[in-house]
Amino acid sequence: MILRSLRAAMAATASIAAVGGAVAIMAAPSAAQADEGMWTFDNFPIQTVNQKYGTRIDQAWLDRVRNASVRIQGCSASFVSDEGLILTNWHCVVGCVQELSDAQRDYVKNGFTAGTREEEVQCPGQTAEVLTEITDVTDRVIAAGEGLEGAAFNTARQAAVNQIQTEACAGDAKFNCQVISLYRGGQYSLHKFRKYDDVRLVFAPENQAAFFGGDPDNFNFPRYALDAGFLRAYEDGKPVESPNFLKWNPEAPSEGDVTFVSGNPGSTSRLLTMSQLERLRDQQLPIMLIQTSELRGRLLEYSLTGDEAKRTSFDPIFGLENSFKVYYGQQGALTDPAFMQAKREAEAELRTRVAADPNLKQQIGDPWTELEAVQGVARDLYLPYRQLEQAAGGGSQLYAMARAIVRSAGADEARRARLAATVGEETPISTDMEELRLRYWLSKTREYLTVDNPQVKAMLGRESPEALAGRLIDGTRMADADFRRQAAGMTLEQMKAADPLLAFVAANDEAAQAIAGRWAAEVNAPTARAAEKVAQARFAVYGTNQYPDATFSLRLSYGEVKGWTYRGVTVPPFTYIGGLYERATGSEPFNLAQAFADNEARVNKAVVYDFVSTNDIIGGNSGSPVINADGEVIGAAFDGNIHSLGGSFGYDGDLNRTVSVSTAAITEALRNVYPNPRILAELGVR
Amino acid sequence: MILRSLRAAMAATASIAAVGGAVAIMAAPSAAQADEGMWTFDNFPIQTVNQKYGTRIDQAWLDRVRNASVRIQGCSASFVSDEGLILTNWHCVVGCVQELSDAQRDYVKNGFTAGTREEEVQCPGQTAEVLTEITDVTDRVIAAGEGLEGAAFNTARQAAVNQIQTEACAGDAKFNCQVISLYRGGQYSLHKFRKYDDVRLVFAPENQAAFFGGDPDNFNFPRYALDAGFLRAYEDGKPVESPNFLKWNPEAPSEGDVTFVSGNPGSTSRLLTMSQLERLRDQQLPIMLIQTSELRGRLLEYSLTGDEAKRTSFDPIFGLENSFKVYYGQQGALTDPAFMQAKREAEAELRTRVAADPNLKQQIGDPWTELEAVQGVARDLYLPYRQLEQAAGGGSQLYAMARAIVRSAGADEARRARLAATVGEETPISTDMEELRLRYWLSKTREYLTVDNPQVKAMLGRESPEALAGRLIDGTRMADADFRRQAAGMTLEQMKAADPLLAFVAANDEAAQAIAGRWAAEVNAPTARAAEKVAQARFAVYGTNQYPDATFSLRLSYGEVKGWTYRGVTVPPFTYIGGLYERATGSEPFNLAQAFADNEARVNKAVVYDFVSTNDIIGGNSGSPVINADGEVIGAAFDGNIHSLGGSFGYDGDLNRTVSVSTAAITEALRNVYPNPRILAELGVR
Repeated sequence: MILRSLRAAMAATASIAAVGGAVAIMAAPSAAQADEGMWTFDNFPIQTVNQKYGTRIDQAWLDRVRNASVRIQGCSASFVSDEGLILTNWHCVVGCVQELSDAQRDYVKNGFTAGTREEEVQCPGQTAEVLTEITDVTDRVIAAGEGLEGAAFNTARQAAVNQIQTEACAGDAKFNCQVISLYRGGQYSLHKFRKYDDVRLVFAPENQAAFFGGDPDNFNFPRYALDAGFLRAYEDGKPVESPNFLKWNPEAPSEGDVTFVSGNPGSTSRLLTMSQLERLRDQQLPIMLIQTSELRGRLLEYSLTGDEAKRTSFDPIFGLENSFKVYYGQQGALTDPAFMQAKREAEAELRTRVAADPNLKQQIGDPWTELEAVQGVARDLYLPYRQLEQAAGGGSQLYAMARAIVRSAGADEARRARLAATVGEETPISTDMEELRLRYWLSKTREYLTVDNPQVKAMLGRESPEALAGRLIDGTRMADADFRRQAAGMTLEQMKAADPLLAFVAANDEAAQAIAGRWAAEVNAPTARAAEKVAQARFAVYGTNQYPDATFSLRLSYGEVKGWTYRGVTVPPFTYIGGLYERATGSEPFNLAQAFADNEARVNKAVVYDFVSTNDIIGGNSGSPVINADGEVIGAAFDGNIHSLGGSFGYDGDLNRTVSVSTAAITEALRNVYPNPRILAELGVR
Repeated sequence: MILRSLRAAMAATASIAAVGGAVAIMAAPSAAQADEGMWTFDNFPIQTVNQKYGTRIDQAWLDRVRNASVRIQGCSASFVSDEGLILTNWHCVVGCVQELSDAQRDYVKNGFTAGTREEEVQCPGQTAEVLTEITDVTDRVIAAGEGLEGAAFNTARQAAVNQIQTEACAGDAKFNCQVISLYRGGQYSLHKFRKYDDVRLVFAPENQAAFFGGDPDNFNFPRYALDAGFLRAYEDGKPVESPNFLKWNPEAPSEGDVTFVSGNPGSTSRLLTMSQLERLRDQQLPIMLIQTSELRGRLLEYSLTGDEAKRTSFDPIFGLENSFKVYYGQQGALTDPAFMQAKREAEAELRTRVAADPNLKQQIGDPWTELEAVQGVARDLYLPYRQLEQAAGGGSQLYAMARAIVRSAGADEARRARLAATVGEETPISTDMEELRLRYWLSKTREYLTVDNPQVKAMLGRESPEALAGRLIDGTRMADADFRRQAAGMTLEQMKAADPLLAFVAANDEAAQAIAGRWAAEVNAPTARAAEKVAQARFAVYGTNQYPDATFSLRLSYGEVKGWTYRGVTVPPFTYIGGLYERATGSEPFNLAQAFADNEARVNKAVVYDFVSTNDIIGGNSGSPVINADGEVIGAAFDGNIHSLGGSFGYDGDLNRTVSVSTAAITEALRNVYPNPRILAELGVR
């Protein structure tokens, strides 16, 4: 699944420092052939597309699509009716579905259908945002950091960004203003979003329908997954008006039809320098793969201990296995000798061309060598940064909330009130899994930083990771939403006295913030400065007709419905609902969803189920509408094929494919599997 | 712990094809400074050592040490009395200790002491071997493969090796004859061992004394581990006579004292070519690290489910975590830019010197390019080879025995009888862990080979990995030793009818053998041919005063008692028993062993506990005697420091250290912690 993790999405939107650390650089022009590119709406290659596909895209078409595109947490979506109905993926709403479930009502397993509008249930914390305005603010952002280094550079830029955002939204809570880094510092754009805070669940199929084939089929094709769900945006208790919705086309496309995908690709790193790629390959990805694998093993065994364990661990395991596959695919690209050789040659060419032009050389300097030096620092800092800050808590929700509360102790009242509202929301917590995650994190921290590391000693004292995790989770009151709300108003001293988990976080937070500060100042800041120079070099040498690397901001990609051929095997672009019944073995995760089994006789097996297209997308694009030349929605993108997993670093038009569930299949499901005449009518389907 | 896995040890001794796959090449002379080298006893640098350390080593000294050195499964050891008493590590006998334990008598946790000779208990399957004779058989082995390729090459060489071995031992069951590959095919040596099949457990301390600090302290120093155990070799029901034993010296050495380590380093790969190292780095080690981590996570969670789960999983988790750390250290070396650059330069130099000499060029050809081509094949075959053959069963004992039984169906009566005797031995089986390992293996096989792979489909049918693993383990009778003995006499058809696990293995064995055959013919055979050429090139360019890569055959290393300095921090060479009490936190794995807690007042805390020396060792050396200039034993090597983990690929005299438990500490423990006057008397200690 091309899901962008919530954690990463939040980090990217929270601060420019995080964006600075994402090291995205604009793509190489030599590679920008085929259907490559995640284009911004203000720089879409209209002419190229119209020529290649015979379409008549114009600015009005683009504006309509942009206004129908919706950004939700970690995912993409679109309005598909004028009453705020939103199409996205099932896997983008499953977090909400799981939160609304309990041992008695398991909507993940059984699906959720609101029979009436009144039965539509609010998803806690869920927002929906529509991009309304794009403004170039590059000069202002860059001017702010002029002449500064390290922490001072970060602070000055962050202040400028904050000011731009504050000015643009002018305190209007209906809007969200965000400065987006593009072309790896070559450009900064202010994105102004219309924001909806009340988003309700309308429909989600059974997990077994949406995620048929589970992890084994994830990132694979042929595929038989109804990975679709509906939400609805509300405001003042009423559905929002959404006149710019995408018209629902219940027919499947044909092979060769043009397809557009509008959504929020999370992060690509297609033109990292070689030294950056090598550090990723040699240090960061291996650690992520190894640690994810151990946690995966722990959670998988935990999930087998009982029905409730299985239920509560479903979504965490799904997310973890998805991330694992993404990292594995990324590592595959970086350990492919041919791929790395191509990267090496591209970098050598750019450096040669810069060196050959004295003026350009004067302007650019040698950011490649600077970035190489930064990698040495990053190698030294990465493990403590990861264990004490970036991955601290091992994914424990209680730890994450505790840290947010502890860190708010010195904040202004408005921010504290916002935090109190957020952490004060009811959310189901599995204390077993919380403890599992904490003991995993504590034991890995001791392992990677060593027993004799002062921070490790301070954390563990005389306790074992297992005993400490048990004591913190047994003793904490953080699972109680009311307590969390109270805690968000306490002084630091009160927090320490009130709760062992808050006390633990508070006692160790100085060390965590210290390493985070070093990472920001010694890695992010010099990376930002140098990568900006690399971006400028690329603009100078290759021109500006380029797309920026993905930064979880709205992009449009184009392509066509098309299969692929690999090692002599051709994979056709479509699957049909009938294929689901053939692939089903009866064993998880290849068992039929109950409703599909029950309704087999009624279902039209000839309907196209899922399809692939050449669109260039990545994690964060999940839920993106797939749009035809007429601006109608014909599917929801939910995955890439296995070859797309290297997409972080490059696009290969012969092999990379977007996987989507067709509106045809969703329509058929709403007719004969999960009959829902209300939604069908709203979609304008007979 | 520098334990060599039993599986690897058996593979290396079982067939020359396995040795051929181990790609060991003699070390570079430029690196053979400091105290580098795992020298064979017939090519020990006597003069170098005597000059450097002022010793008076001669052939008689070497013969004495060789005759006192004992090879046991996966480890090293030595005779320390004239009545067959054997010193080795606790972690080399813990497998036996665990087998002798049950829920009522937990010798792993509580330790084992035979108060009288009658209480010494046989370790199932344990053997002890003393190397008595070394004969060069290079010409005969190489001649056998002349002009052949692929499978034919393997077959011819294996036949020659078998014949040499059979002739040399002449059917005398008291001997074991083994052809050892040295210098990566530059030399073949026939090693003749005196073999003892009745080996009994004499003493093992509590696991918490031997393995204090557990995995977190493993491969680290300062260290406080009583990693020592005693066995005794018997023959005809009586202790064997061992006049060539090493005299026990109960005094600790001093800093700077010369130290010799005699033992069986398992495997090094110090002069793999760059293409071989890169495939290891990019494919094999990542997969091993990832899969080991997931299994580790599964076992760790399983171990927390109850006391019996904790008890039975202790040794498997210990072994797995030890392997993980070794792989992690190896990967660390291969992802160190400076290390790889040095390797690259060394290879370039050798190739340049070969190219500069027309005669040599004519003789050697270009094995480096040939090996590069082999890596492409290995990349394609590795995953199916690993999943279907090399790592099949995920470590399940029942699966391993079932496969051995199925594969014996066509063998001659003698081999079948030997197998029946082996598998017919009683051994405790944890069916929970067996099922865990099978479902882990089946699910990883599906993941890495994909759902649609024909072998995966054949294996799983319509079952999930979890259901299939459950059915096989629930249904199999293989946990019953009597049944296993019977099964080893059945026809293949009888096996299939008699047991679901045997039936499962039989049904899938053709595919496993097919991929194993391809690996042998397309990877091992051409690797052997090319690597032999590389070895010849090294002999020609750098001369013959070299040590061969480790192949779990007897070697002697020299060095001195010495700490090290890393990043400004100096680590002294000794720890003292008093330090144990200071490091103990009370929490696992830093809790005191009961006997150490109980006897704190009696123990002499000033006694040297563990010490480090510059000896060049690796996994398989565990249990090796550490010997002073006078040929007395002063310790048992049980580990390397963290810097030694890259030792597979190179030795760094500034940082690599051997970690040993002192005879002084063992003596003190036998006096005041686990009082054992009988053993002390036998060791000649007052």
